Order: sequence, then C-alpha cells, then structure tokens
Amino acid sequence: MHNPLLVPELREMLACGDGDGLREFCLESHPATVADFIALLEPAEVRGVLATVPPRERALIFSHLDPAMEFALTELLSRKELAEMVTHMLADERVDLLQRLTDEQREALMPALTAAEREDIRRLASYPDGTAGAVMTSDYAALSPSESAAQAIERLRREAPDKETIYYAYVVDEKRRPVGFISLRDLILAPAQRKVGEIMQRDVVYASADDDQEKVAQLIAKYDLLALPLTGADGTLVGIVTHDDVIDVIRQEHTEDVEKFVGIAGEHEVGAYLRTSALVHFRNRAGWVVGLAALGLVSGEIYQAFDTKLDHLLLLAFYLPMIASTGGNTGSQAAMVVMRSLATGEISGQHALQVLWKEARVATLMAGVLGLLVFGKVMLMESSAAMPVGMTLTAVALAIGLALSVQVITSTMAGALLPLLVSRLGFDPAVVASPALTTTVDITGLLIYFGVATLLLGL
Amino acid sequence: MHNPLLVPELREMLACGDGDGLREFCLESHPATVADFIALLEPAEVRGVLATVPPRERALIFSHLDPAMEFALTELLSRKELAEMVTHMLADERVDLLQRLTDEQREALMPALTAAEREDIRRLASYPDGTAGAVMTSDYAALSPSESAAQAIERLRREAPDKETIYYAYVVDEKRRPVGFISLRDLILAPAQRKVGEIMQRDVVYASADDDQEKVAQLIAKYDLLALPLTGADGTLVGIVTHDDVIDVIRQEHTEDVEKFVGIAGEHEVGAYLRTSALVHFRNRAGWVVGLAALGLVSGEIYQAFDTKLDHLLLLAFYLPMIASTGGNTGSQAAMVVMRSLATGEISGQHALQVLWKEARVATLMAGVLGLLVFGKVMLMESSAAMPVGMTLTAVALAIGLALSVQVITSTMAGALLPLLVSRLGFDPAVVASPALTTTVDITGLLIYFGVATLLLGL
Repeated sequence: MHNPLLVPELREMLACGDGDGLREFCLESHPATVADFIALLEPAEVRGVLATVPPRERALIFSHLDPAMEFALTELLSRKELAEMVTHMLADERVDLLQRLTDEQREALMPALTAAEREDIRRLASYPDGTAGAVMTSDYAALSPSESAAQAIERLRREAPDKETIYYAYVVDEKRRPVGFISLRDLILAPAQRKVGEIMQRDVVYASADDDQEKVAQLIAKYDLLALPLTGADGTLVGIVTHDDVIDVIRQEHTEDVEKFVGIAGEHEVGAYLRTSALVHFRNRAGWVVGLAALGLVSGEIYQAFDTKLDHLLLLAFYLPMIASTGGNTGSQAAMVVMRSLATGEISGQHALQVLWKEARVATLMAGVLGLLVFGKVMLMESSAAMPVGMTLTAVALAIGLALSVQVITSTMAGALLPLLVSRLGFDPAVVASPALTTTVDITGLLIYFGVATLLLGL
Repeated sequence: MHNPLLVPELREMLACGDGDGLREFCLESHPATVADFIALLEPAEVRGVLATVPPRERALIFSHLDPAMEFALTELLSRKELAEMVTHMLADERVDLLQRLTDEQREALMPALTAAEREDIRRLASYPDGTAGAVMTSDYAALSPSESAAQAIERLRREAPDKETIYYAYVVDEKRRPVGFISLRDLILAPAQRKVGEIMQRDVVYASADDDQEKVAQLIAKYDLLALPLTGADGTLVGIVTHDDVIDVIRQEHTEDVEKFVGIAGEHEVGAYLRTSALVHFRNRAGWVVGLAALGLVSGEIYQAFDTKLDHLLLLAFYLPMIASTGGNTGSQAAMVVMRSLATGEISGQHALQVLWKEARVATLMAGVLGLLVFGKVMLMESSAAMPVGMTLTAVALAIGLALSVQVITSTMAGALLPLLVSRLGFDPAVVASPALTTTVDITGLLIYFGVATLLLGL
C-alpha cells in the first residue's frame, strides 16, 4: 500500500510543474496516506502539492499532517489561501488549528471568515480542554420529526459534503432540543412516506457539552455508537462527538493516566514525545522526582535513628531493603488495578467495600506466602549468623517474616484505598502517583520493621 | 434516561404475565440499557423478560449482559431456545459465547445450527486471542464492481438486518479478493446508474486476519475508519473489524500494558476486576513480587559488605535510601514515556537514537539539578556532622551529589533503553516491568554510591 520511493517522484513532478500528476496522486489515496508521504517534503514543497487539489481535499490532507508541519504551512500560506482552507476544514479540526495559530495570524484570518463560521468557532472554542465540548463538532445532521423518510434521505444526501457523518441524524424540535435519533440504515429500511417522528428512536443517549470527555468515551463504548449528541446548558443540541474522536480521547486519557502514575505532569498529547523539547520533558518530570527525593531523606533519618540496633543485629540490615521495596511493589499493583477499574468505569466509589475486601484477601495471601518464605529462608540459611546473647534464630526469623507480612498488607491496602478516596473526593484517581506511594511505603516499611523488631526482640 | 425504580415494576409485569408491557419496555430502549436493568433480576426472571421479544432483539439484549449472567442463562435455556438465539447473534459475539460454553453445551448446540453457521463459527474461532481475526466479524457487506449504485443500495437495504454495518461495503472480485471499498455515503451521492467499479476507492486500507489486534486498532485510528477489512492467507476477504470492537481492543491492550508495567501477569480482560477471584489476583501478582523480593536481598548483601564504611561516615547512610529510590523514579518515568510512545505507534525501533538522545538530555538536566540541590543541602545543613580525619565536608558533599547524578543518568538511560531493546527483539515492550527496573536500579544505585564514595573519599 505504501511506496517509499514516491518522494523523489513527487519532487520531480513538482519540478516539472506536473499538476495533473500530483492531483491524481493526492485524490486516489486516503488523505492520511497522502499526508504521510508529503510529510517527508519541505513545507514549501507541501504547499506546492496541496495547491494542485480542490480546497475540500486540501483541507482533509492538511488535517492529517502533524502539528509542526501544519504550523509551518500556515506561515507560508497567504491570508486568502489560509482562510479558504480553514473554511473547508471540519468544524472541530478548524478550532484546533485556530487555537494553535499566533494571535496575529488569528486576527488576520478572522475577518476573512463568514459571521456564521466565526460564531461557530467562538462557541466550539469556549469549552475548556478535557470537556466533551472541546472534542465535539457542529457539523452534524439534524432532521425534523415531520419530514418523511424519503425527504430525510434527500436532505442528508444534499448536506452530506458538509457533515462529519450522515449515518446518524438527530431529530430536533423547533427549539433545537433533541427529541429522537435515527440512523441512515433505519431511514433506508423505512417506507418512503413514513414520518421521521414515527420511525425515530426516542430513547436518545446523550451527554452535556460540559461533561468530561471520558464520560463521552464510556457512553460511546457502552452503546457501540458512531456518534454521541451533546446538549448545551439550555438543553439544545450543540454538537456531536464522533467515534474517531473518541479513539483519540481514549488514547489521550490512557497516556494521561499512566504518565500521572509515574509522576509526570503537564500536557499529555498523544504522539508528542519526540516533538516535546527535552526542557519541557524535564519540567514535567522534575516536580515529583525532586519532591520525593526530599521525602526520601526521611528514610535516611530513620536509618540513622536505628543504626545502633542494626549494628547490634547485622542480620536485620540484610533484610531491610527487601522489605521496603516489596511494599512498594505490592502497593503499586493494588493502586494500578483499582485505578484501571475506576478508569474503565467497572467500579466506582460505591464499590469501595467490595474492592477493599478483595484486596484484603489478596494481601493476606501474599503476606502469608512471603512471610513464610522469608521465615523459612532465615531459619535455613542464617543459622551461622552471630546472635546477641539471649536471642534465638527463631525469634529473629519470626520478627522478619512478621514485619514483611505487615508491610505487604498495609501497603496493599494503602494502594487500593488511595485511588478510591481520591476519586470519592472528585479528583482523578491517577494522581495517586506510584512513586509517591512507593516512597511513602518505604518510610512506613522502615517504621514497621524497626517497630516489630523492638517489640518482638526487645532491641 | 435511567430509572432505578423500574426493577420492581418489571417484577410486577412478570408476575401478572404482562408480556406486552415487557416487550414494549425492551423494544423502546437501547439493548445496552435494557441489559443494565434486567441485570438486576434473577436469571430465571431475565429469561422470562427475554421470552417476550423477537429472537433478533433478544440476541441483541443478551449480547449486552455480563458474561456471568450470559452463562447462567445458557444453563436455563432449552437447546432449541439457545440455538435460536445463537443463530440471531452477530457472528463475532456468537463465537465469543460459544467459547465460554461447556463442551457438552457446545456439542448439544452444534447440530441445531446450519452447516454455514457451523463453518463460520469454526473459521472465526480458529484465530488465536490477540489476533485481528479473533475480533473480526464475518457479517460484512460485499459488492461486485459490475453492480450499479442503485443495485448496490438495494442490495445493502435487503441485507442490512444480517450485517454488522452497511455504511462500509467492500468490493470483491470473483475470487473474493478485495479490489475496492465504497461507503454508503458515496453510493447515495453517486448517479444511480454508475457502476460500483467506477466510483469505488481502489486504495483499500486492510490488514491480515493473522495480524496483531493492536495493528488493526492503529490503522482504524489513523484513517478514521468505521471498519477495517481483513484478508486470509490466500488474499481473500475473510471479515471486518468494526470501530466499536476497536475501542474494546484499545482498552484491553492498555490494561494489559499497565498491568504488565506493575508486574501483573495473566488475562487482562477489561471489566473483570470484581469478577476475578482473590486467588487468581494473587496468582497473577505473586510471580514478580516474590522474584523481586529475592532480588531485593542482593541490596541487603551490598549493605552488609559496605557496613563498615557506613559506620565510618554516618552521613553516607543518611543519603543512601534517597539515592536508590530517586533512581527508581526517574527510570520508571523514562520507561513509561518510551513504552507509551511505542504503544501508540509514535515511535518504533528506528527512532532509538532520537529517543536516547532526548532522554540523555532530560537525564542530564535532572542529574544536574538534583546533584546541585543535594550538594547544597549537604554543605549548608550537615556542617555539624562528625567527619573522619582528613576528610572535608566539601569532598563528602561532592561525592553524594555526584553519586546521585550518576544514578539518575544511568537509571533514566536504562529505563529508556530497555523497552526499545525488548521491542526490537520482537517482544511487547510492556514486559519491562517497573518493579523489576526499580529493584535493579536499587542495586546499581548502591554500587554507584559506594563506588563513588570509595573513589572520591578513599573510604
């Protein structure tokens, strides 16, 4: 399907002014494929290729270029060329592009658009990032309940070039409030003279444009929809989110979740790793790392405080790092599964008790197995270790095994509880960063270890 | 949209034998909504509700029930009832259900299906989990290039009830090899007498049924498709994967990635947290935790070996845990961003140098800032610490700062390099579990720390 030899060929066609050849190349492939090829050219060359195709196709190919190339092109295009292209872009992609332009570019461009386009842009741009409104498009098909099926199909056919999808149409009343939903499939299957109002589905699945974009993704996934309609504060239909935008939303939310999980802040745009400068990567990561390094010094304090005890019984020092890191591992696992189940919508705050009960059983199994293994290892392999007077190997083995078990249980429960708590408070559970959890259970692990040793061994 | 008061109402309708009321309830809502409500009933009651609706709608509602309820129903239904429902299910969901049945149930059921259905099930079931073939459906619409647009629309309309989508149709030659693609939108817009072969797009984006399901998800996302056609080993069209199945694939792959990241093995079905028993959760998590606990003992060995040095200069012990955990944090961050960029398809093995160069710069910035902060802290706040004869505070501060810097750089580079390497070797980069990385850089961190201290301070 792809032909990497095409780039020199494109350059040659550009050099000989072979507009027909270039147009044919651009129109016979998917716009995303064309964008892939021409992305290897210089921006001025890309401009030359795009100039050969009609404005609508030009806008489609342009929308598939990466943001850096898009920006370079906006600087090369005249105001008139840019306005023509913006007019032909899909409503949601147009807003995204405009938000990336400089203030001067935007100001120069706006007067070249129609009043309706400007109003549409203003409305779409008014929804903050992360809301459903920010990923919606206003290019949806609306029908009236009094139209016949045949009239509706004719209208969809006429409006098709300007709509993101004509497979789903929304039936609205005179105040533009959604009253029903109909698919092109249903319209085609219906008798030509039946009224839309009679064949439409009245149970419309919809969301508010102010809702979180993740909610829209969950609804589209649950109901297997091609698109989901959104209503504004006044209950009128303001736009739709389509299945392809939802895939982007899901990926972006995943990236956000996992990056937060390892303590990375900042924008989490998909496909932006190479484009983001090292300085910005550093800024996004440094916060947690520096903060946790400071917190990590607390562990050092505890070591120092108990240093004489360790000197007294060297065996204790040997098992200490393992106990701290095992707590970090089990805590991170519990936090991750609970966060993931919250993110996919499988569980919510109301399942807290069920989750904690399940994790308590998992933790008990894990604590039992690990505690026994360590007890056995100490008994079998440390029999030659020097013991302080009055202390038996069994007591030491018991103390180490017990400390590990307590550490595993507390860290697992903390890992499961924190995301539930954070989500109950209305925050994104992904902020329970794993490094924070790990560093915290490092500290509690040390306290548990020395606590158990003091109690059981009287150190 | 949802009415939690409906359950008692449903029970009442069942009790009075109000079949019409139940049928109306089932047919006026989305099958997923109906499934939500009746999931709160007992399996025998669900069977009663489903019995009131026509087989096709019954199969649709059934497909939205959770697997436990589905299984309970299959045990209640007679062979005839089950066969009738299976016949009306979508091809891909039918296979999923059959694979969950017991051998006896399946053997009892098979003779009740048509030969074509049995052959279809056999073919769909032959693709292993994780391949595109395992999530495809054979209910796609195929056209011939010699049909007119009007004939094609008429055919799609006729076949609509049996197809998963009629919005995308695939044009095949006499050997059923894909030669083009056409959307219902294009068919509706085309003059009625134009031949499909003249209006179809020849540049079909497709994959092989043996490809990884993740590749299909990436293609559908990239080209904004409703469905992607799949070919068999002989180049013929064998099925399609639709946009709704791709959302499930993306979520499942993501859950797999993040669970592997925290060292959790096993099946990674979305929405299975509460359904999975504590014992299975334990089994999935225990492997890495126990293995890493064993590896963690190596850290203890290193502590013991250097114990006299720590006694000699207590200040060193204080900063030790912080250096180990900071390496774990920076390494996990690098591993996560690189893995995520590999998973979304932004980067691949060929970007290795670019990635390493970017991470090297991020690591240098991080190492510089952290090294300076720690150097400053030691100089300012440890001036009262006891020093061995012939050792200056500046030398100690320098050694601690340098060790931290080296630890940050090596762990960041290790975190970035490992997923690239694993992916180059053809494995899933997510197997570079973060706990393994953390435990490893714990150990290298100790070696770096004591190494630098030995070299710089002559301990």
